[in-house]
Amino acid sequence: MDEQAPRGRWSRRSMLAGAAAGLVTPLVVNGSAAPFTVAAAAQPRGKLRQVTIYAEPLPNGLFGYGLNPGEATIPGPLLEIYEGDTLEIELVNNTDQRLSIHPHGVDYDTASDGSPLNASFNEPGETRTYTWRSRPQARASGGFWMPGSAGYWHYHDHAMGDHGTPGIAKGLYGGLIVRKSGDLLPDKQFTVVFNEMSINNKMAPDTPMFEANHGQRVEFLAVGHGNQPHTFHLHAHRWADTRTGMLNGDDDHSPVVDNKNLDPGSSFGFQVIAGAGVGPGVWMYHCHVQFHADGGMVGLFLVRNSDGSMPAGAQEAIDRFHDHQHARASAQGEHSAHR
Amino acid sequence: MDEQAPRGRWSRRSMLAGAAAGLVTPLVVNGSAAPFTVAAAAQPRGKLRQVTIYAEPLPNGLFGYGLNPGEATIPGPLLEIYEGDTLEIELVNNTDQRLSIHPHGVDYDTASDGSPLNASFNEPGETRTYTWRSRPQARASGGFWMPGSAGYWHYHDHAMGDHGTPGIAKGLYGGLIVRKSGDLLPDKQFTVVFNEMSINNKMAPDTPMFEANHGQRVEFLAVGHGNQPHTFHLHAHRWADTRTGMLNGDDDHSPVVDNKNLDPGSSFGFQVIAGAGVGPGVWMYHCHVQFHADGGMVGLFLVRNSDGSMPAGAQEAIDRFHDHQHARASAQGEHSAHR
Amino acid sequence: MDEQAPRGRWSRRSMLAGAAAGLVTPLVVNGSAAPFTVAAAAQPRGKLRQVTIYAEPLPNGLFGYGLNPGEATIPGPLLEIYEGDTLEIELVNNTDQRLSIHPHGVDYDTASDGSPLNASFNEPGETRTYTWRSRPQARASGGFWMPGSAGYWHYHDHAMGDHGTPGIAKGLYGGLIVRKSGDLLPDKQFTVVFNEMSINNKMAPDTPMFEANHGQRVEFLAVGHGNQPHTFHLHAHRWADTRTGMLNGDDDHSPVVDNKNLDPGSSFGFQVIAGAGVGPGVWMYHCHVQFHADGGMVGLFLVRNSDGSMPAGAQEAIDRFHDHQHARASAQGEHSAHR
Repeated sequence: MDEQAPRGRWSRRSMLAGAAAGLVTPLVVNGSAAPFTVAAAAQPRGKLRQVTIYAEPLPNGLFGYGLNPGEATIPGPLLEIYEGDTLEIELVNNTDQRLSIHPHGVDYDTASDGSPLNASFNEPGETRTYTWRSRPQARASGGFWMPGSAGYWHYHDHAMGDHGTPGIAKGLYGGLIVRKSGDLLPDKQFTVVFNEMSINNKMAPDTPMFEANHGQRVEFLAVGHGNQPHTFHLHAHRWADTRTGMLNGDDDHSPVVDNKNLDPGSSFGFQVIAGAGVGPGVWMYHCHVQFHADGGMVGLFLVRNSDGSMPAGAQEAIDRFHDHQHARASAQGEHSAHR
Repeated sequence: MDEQAPRGRWSRRSMLAGAAAGLVTPLVVNGSAAPFTVAAAAQPRGKLRQVTIYAEPLPNGLFGYGLNPGEATIPGPLLEIYEGDTLEIELVNNTDQRLSIHPHGVDYDTASDGSPLNASFNEPGETRTYTWRSRPQARASGGFWMPGSAGYWHYHDHAMGDHGTPGIAKGLYGGLIVRKSGDLLPDKQFTVVFNEMSINNKMAPDTPMFEANHGQRVEFLAVGHGNQPHTFHLHAHRWADTRTGMLNGDDDHSPVVDNKNLDPGSSFGFQVIAGAGVGPGVWMYHCHVQFHADGGMVGLFLVRNSDGSMPAGAQEAIDRFHDHQHARASAQGEHSAHR
Repeated sequence: MDEQAPRGRWSRRSMLAGAAAGLVTPLVVNGSAAPFTVAAAAQPRGKLRQVTIYAEPLPNGLFGYGLNPGEATIPGPLLEIYEGDTLEIELVNNTDQRLSIHPHGVDYDTASDGSPLNASFNEPGETRTYTWRSRPQARASGGFWMPGSAGYWHYHDHAMGDHGTPGIAKGLYGGLIVRKSGDLLPDKQFTVVFNEMSINNKMAPDTPMFEANHGQRVEFLAVGHGNQPHTFHLHAHRWADTRTGMLNGDDDHSPVVDNKNLDPGSSFGFQVIAGAGVGPGVWMYHCHVQFHADGGMVGLFLVRNSDGSMPAGAQEAIDRFHDHQHARASAQGEHSAHR
């Protein structure tokens, strides 16, 4: 499946290169289709984690962030830390555009804001360090607590154009997870970005097909970008509208949803057990705005049998998805050719 | 009020016919304007419930689901089960279109997905059985719980066109409630679907007028469909943004709202005490997107006196609503006639 | 900073004039840029609070609500009560338009609905009294509680045009806070209304610059209006998606966000500690819909040093914001002049 790996593989060497000196623990960085790496999860908290990220041009006028030169992907690498950690990002700008990296959910001073307002960006060819800090929730008076940094967040360019509009449109975005100690760790992780009328800057049938085995714990990080309102829907699975996507006790009456607004700048995450209660098979995820789904904002979540083999009927569904979309595309091509 | 009963009455006979054999308990199925029936609510959980639903053409190119031939309505029948129950739907397609029934919030295998992707649909004239299962939340490790099926959900066509777009546009949708044991049962239930620029495929003054007596417990199930973002607003009543629309203890700090996003594919429900704190009268519910309200996405919630009589001023308000909208409609008609 | 005080100062005299007779306690009414007044916060609950509000024409075809003749502002005065209080608003219509005042979140009978449906409005030149009541949550059976009135709400015209559309477009809106006893009180309060393509009917660089000192407790009340979907994003600060914007215990797993849908008719509020974890500086707040940000839905949150002095680089950022936007505006002006 060529469509299956829309994001590059990460290389452990590059992470260690990025995480230069002795006291530094490498952060967990995953490609969205790659197995989850829990190496850093057992590390002590409050560590300084360093990484070098390369902003680079991609074919068709796109841009991407990557962990090595020549390995930029859309979305960029999934960054993951624990509450309390600090993330120091050396951003290398290998493009001819002004750009930056601006995070949601974490702490940064104005020099790491990533905005032209604060003169916080990389000129073409420039390398600049951005520092993101995180912290746990803090007790206030009256029984209230000021929230911490834990959450399913994201990062994106904020300096191309006035506010990063062309940078985001062309692929400069990625996922960021800040975990609390004790959070459940998934077997697989997928980043889904509804960016304008695309998913991860792809349209069906080229949208990512996410894969897991029946029974695996799968984490989705959903991010919205662009100018359109969207709703993210996943077939045959659902989640709680909480920080983790799970409930926190038998008496937790938080809403449970399988469809949620994913509007520009918003993000959420959740974990599901692949195929729980429904079995293996090919399940759609899509924008539930009907014209967006019809226009190609649809992808597949392939839940394989627990031994990794293909469930009955799955290949036929995948073929149907590809044939149908290709048939539509060529019909539209012919149609416009005749005009 | 002709506008008051936009959905057909259900017939107990048809439900029993649908719920054929001995071990099967009939599900609770309500027309939106009909009194709530709690018969099944006292039944043991985990039952198999069977129903036959007929997809049929309606005047003006519309379609609807119904519990008997010739009784299709928009929205279709409100289906209601308890967490743990299984719902077996025999869908009879009495139209000349390919269509299906696809639910949110419950479990179904790929054969009951209702999507062309999984070859799960009814050809014209075909009958097909769809099975929806439900289950309670399940303990995970770390104090987390994977959510169950309880919630205010909905169902809709997913096979006309690529993704059900024309089927939904023309009326193939309805409400689905999965309750937890111990949930409070309402006196009245209303399904409100913001579908493109309509409410239940009607525009003012033909939108449904929902009625209850002062002090009755009223349940709203709100569903979004189509391509437009919407916000649902109800005058003089509010609800908590939880699974039930109520708070779960004196110290529950969930948001309380009277206006909430109702975007395509999303749904929520809540219960209010009709007229609590505000008295009987005619209250608007409407989309708060201003042009949508101006364009006709407005309906009435008539709270009668507790003895069922009309409150002072209510008939005048209803007349005003109808006269005004009719005046607007004929003005627009004349206007276009003159062009 | 002329842009800093988009809303008029309130006069204690006018409040006392409005809060006429003996048993009446003046409500807390704040201009958004004015220091928070806690005078009423120590008052007993369940009081009748009276205020006179003047709806008046403003330059450029706009309208506003104000606490004194000639002092109308956009947004109107921030009204604040405690759960249990009653607010009696004498609305003086000093315009030549039919208009009203319609609240969210509180109780009102049909005569105070503010809608043409219920013949509840002020004709041009007319004075009319609207009564808003509030109440705490109430125990229902089964461990559930019906929600009370506490929340971050708003009010707006509902009678110009059919549903207040032109009134809202032209500035007839404001914030309303209903607190619970024990809620934390802020040092500063700001009302941010995303109204169509504007913030408080201003576009950058004329949008409000909110100011606080490093470490102050700052309350934002965000309101959506008009016809467009929006998302509110604040740089370097975040909040919990609860009634208060704070968490309610160390084990509260409510979502934490820094970007949230702010669609027509919706509102939310939260408190942050200015510059906590990030330091003083100039931080953007903006709509995260990219074209809206590019079009001018951007403002500044100036976090001064804790002694009130300007942090290093802040004035430069402010100048950059103004110069850039002015440069854009004149470029556009020239451009259209050449056509």
